[in-house]
Amino acid sequence: MQAEILSVGTELLLGQVANTNAQVLARCLAAWGIPLYRQVAVGDNPQRLARAFSEAWQQAELVLVTGGLGPTQDDLTKETVAQALGLELAEDPSVRASIEAYFSRRGLPMPASCLKQALVPRGARVLANPLGTAPGLILEQGGRAAVLLPGPPEELGALLRQVEDYISRLAGQGVILSRVLKVVGLGESVVEARVMDLIQAQTNPTLAPLAFPGEVHLRITARAASRVQAAALLDPLEAEIRSRLGSLVFGADEETLEGAVGELLRGRGLTLAVAESCTAGLVAARLTSVPGASAYFLLGVSTYSDRCKSEVLGVPEEVLRRHGAVSREVAEAMAHGVSYRAKSDLGLAVTGIAGPSGGSPEKPVGTVFLAACGRRGVVGEHHLLAGDRAGVRQRAAQAALVLLRRSLLEGRIA
Amino acid sequence: MQAEILSVGTELLLGQVANTNAQVLARCLAAWGIPLYRQVAVGDNPQRLARAFSEAWQQAELVLVTGGLGPTQDDLTKETVAQALGLELAEDPSVRASIEAYFSRRGLPMPASCLKQALVPRGARVLANPLGTAPGLILEQGGRAAVLLPGPPEELGALLRQVEDYISRLAGQGVILSRVLKVVGLGESVVEARVMDLIQAQTNPTLAPLAFPGEVHLRITARAASRVQAAALLDPLEAEIRSRLGSLVFGADEETLEGAVGELLRGRGLTLAVAESCTAGLVAARLTSVPGASAYFLLGVSTYSDRCKSEVLGVPEEVLRRHGAVSREVAEAMAHGVSYRAKSDLGLAVTGIAGPSGGSPEKPVGTVFLAACGRRGVVGEHHLLAGDRAGVRQRAAQAALVLLRRSLLEGRIA
Repeated sequence: MQAEILSVGTELLLGQVANTNAQVLARCLAAWGIPLYRQVAVGDNPQRLARAFSEAWQQAELVLVTGGLGPTQDDLTKETVAQALGLELAEDPSVRASIEAYFSRRGLPMPASCLKQALVPRGARVLANPLGTAPGLILEQGGRAAVLLPGPPEELGALLRQVEDYISRLAGQGVILSRVLKVVGLGESVVEARVMDLIQAQTNPTLAPLAFPGEVHLRITARAASRVQAAALLDPLEAEIRSRLGSLVFGADEETLEGAVGELLRGRGLTLAVAESCTAGLVAARLTSVPGASAYFLLGVSTYSDRCKSEVLGVPEEVLRRHGAVSREVAEAMAHGVSYRAKSDLGLAVTGIAGPSGGSPEKPVGTVFLAACGRRGVVGEHHLLAGDRAGVRQRAAQAALVLLRRSLLEGRIA
Repeated sequence: MQAEILSVGTELLLGQVANTNAQVLARCLAAWGIPLYRQVAVGDNPQRLARAFSEAWQQAELVLVTGGLGPTQDDLTKETVAQALGLELAEDPSVRASIEAYFSRRGLPMPASCLKQALVPRGARVLANPLGTAPGLILEQGGRAAVLLPGPPEELGALLRQVEDYISRLAGQGVILSRVLKVVGLGESVVEARVMDLIQAQTNPTLAPLAFPGEVHLRITARAASRVQAAALLDPLEAEIRSRLGSLVFGADEETLEGAVGELLRGRGLTLAVAESCTAGLVAARLTSVPGASAYFLLGVSTYSDRCKSEVLGVPEEVLRRHGAVSREVAEAMAHGVSYRAKSDLGLAVTGIAGPSGGSPEKPVGTVFLAACGRRGVVGEHHLLAGDRAGVRQRAAQAALVLLRRSLLEGRIA
């Protein structure tokens, strides 16, 4: 069995949104062990959509279609797919009732255009949409299935959970299983060199590196008759990679660096405060994106002015004057200052020049100083980071989390 | 002339990354006025890539291919496309020299595998890659062009600037021009109702709404023989929409809400400090993503504990005890407190329950209180926001920026 993803929406062809729905669906297919060989995106155009759907329907036993299920005139996915499969549309009373209930719960009048969403192709299974008025639809014909899902990402997510069991049953034999091991602290070429013999020897499972700013992912993938057999192929390769890279592997699959740092802090009962200049909130926002972060995250302070660095964080004016706001000395004073303010066990600080202006020959754009401190001491780092303003900020936040994690693992700050 | 985008990378099919490169290319094509009717993504598989390329080459006069140009064994895009077009590969001395220079500048030995990147299809134009070792390539045949670009987003961006002139000359006659007007403060259905007559009357230009969390985009698109003529079609429709929605339109195209807020602050010479609880850094990070934000952004404080709210922001313990940390009173005290700390003209505060836990019947997950203050007074708001933890945080940050902007425009806080 094989799948194809068909994304519908002129906004995709104009580049107004990234196709994150295709990513979400692709990740689900990978988790379900269903091979995906192609993703296609077309606009809200019935001729081109019909053609793309027919091509997908010939290639794949499972076609996942997102977008174009809304109430507006340019939403034509359901009508186009039904026509391609020779299915008539008829109003489904239960869908109509749930659309009416959706509006009455909100005390809003129902626009007449919404009733279009109650039309369902004959024989279709309806997937109730808890977050909107467009239901999902499963259409089966000749041993193939088309699953139509709404485009708003949260609605898509809610419907995917409903469709999972159906698709797992369809999938049957022959699965692909992937795992991703996430590495920090080494560049892609160095990581690759450490596992090059494994890459060169690969047949099943396979091993492929992928670089992100400040992070390298090693994807291992196995094919087998079942998930269990595929997992049995992955386990020894994963163990070998972990033994070679040790603590440079911070997590796997959906795990994040901020989640790994959070686990470390929670496990040791340590609290943290963060002072940021050039990243101004990025480190705090990443750390607090983890549910339950209030157990260890106490305070984040983003200081963009020298005055706030001295008045709020207690960085001595003399240190600012002598070394400049972007310096190792100021990073260390910021880390100590925010930790003192918050009465936290640990302090973490970032100061740097994100650009596009503000650089100098001695301290060009991309210059970043980091510091992490605790009762055992303070650790500082100097980086010259690549990228535009957003890239430098993102890499600086990543480097700060890497520094904090390594300092903790090595017992240098607490 | 019409284009097609072909993205190559198994990581896309496994959902490990979103296809942001396709978005970037699509946005460029839209800006250049070149119609795009389809995007396709395939894995690092030469058979399927060859087939996808041949299909694209039949459909479109311009095929943009990204990914698979790297030094590793699974990077096969150049080889596959050259074979499809019947072109042999030969080492290009200037590309080899630039790859060698890339490594020697960094003081690193050149891996032998990198020399693969110096192989160039005969007759190809080479686009030098300032950020990596994979050059871009332009291959022309029978009035058609294939442009091969590297997958790392920053390298892609650097090469796109080089390729723009070439593609503009190719494009010639017949362009599509789009503009996006960005609206806050109204839901999608209300925005749509206000311009429904324009949507129903549309032929050329067309008008389409698109909803994002806390923001609605109205895209207007015209077809004409030239960019100038297309712009002349767009101008009156844009003016009509702006006159109907007034200041609810905060910007157009690449403009962001944080940029619009920054312009307001800079124009009035006002400074700002931000206190965040549930969003913990998101508002500060958005405001400081704008180059030159240091002219108005002084301080951001993220307090996750009651103690830090009282000790760092000066929120009275009595207020915290009586109303709870998630309350209108605490939001107002946080706004005043952070503004006092920073000696800023304005203060902005967010406190809420992002979930997944922490909700109660009176204050369910998604409950958020906002406050903005200045010398003229303080304005508060209560929201019940939808979404998971990330969604609530994102919508809360958006609502805070909307509140600040509206309070300023209405003269209620300064």
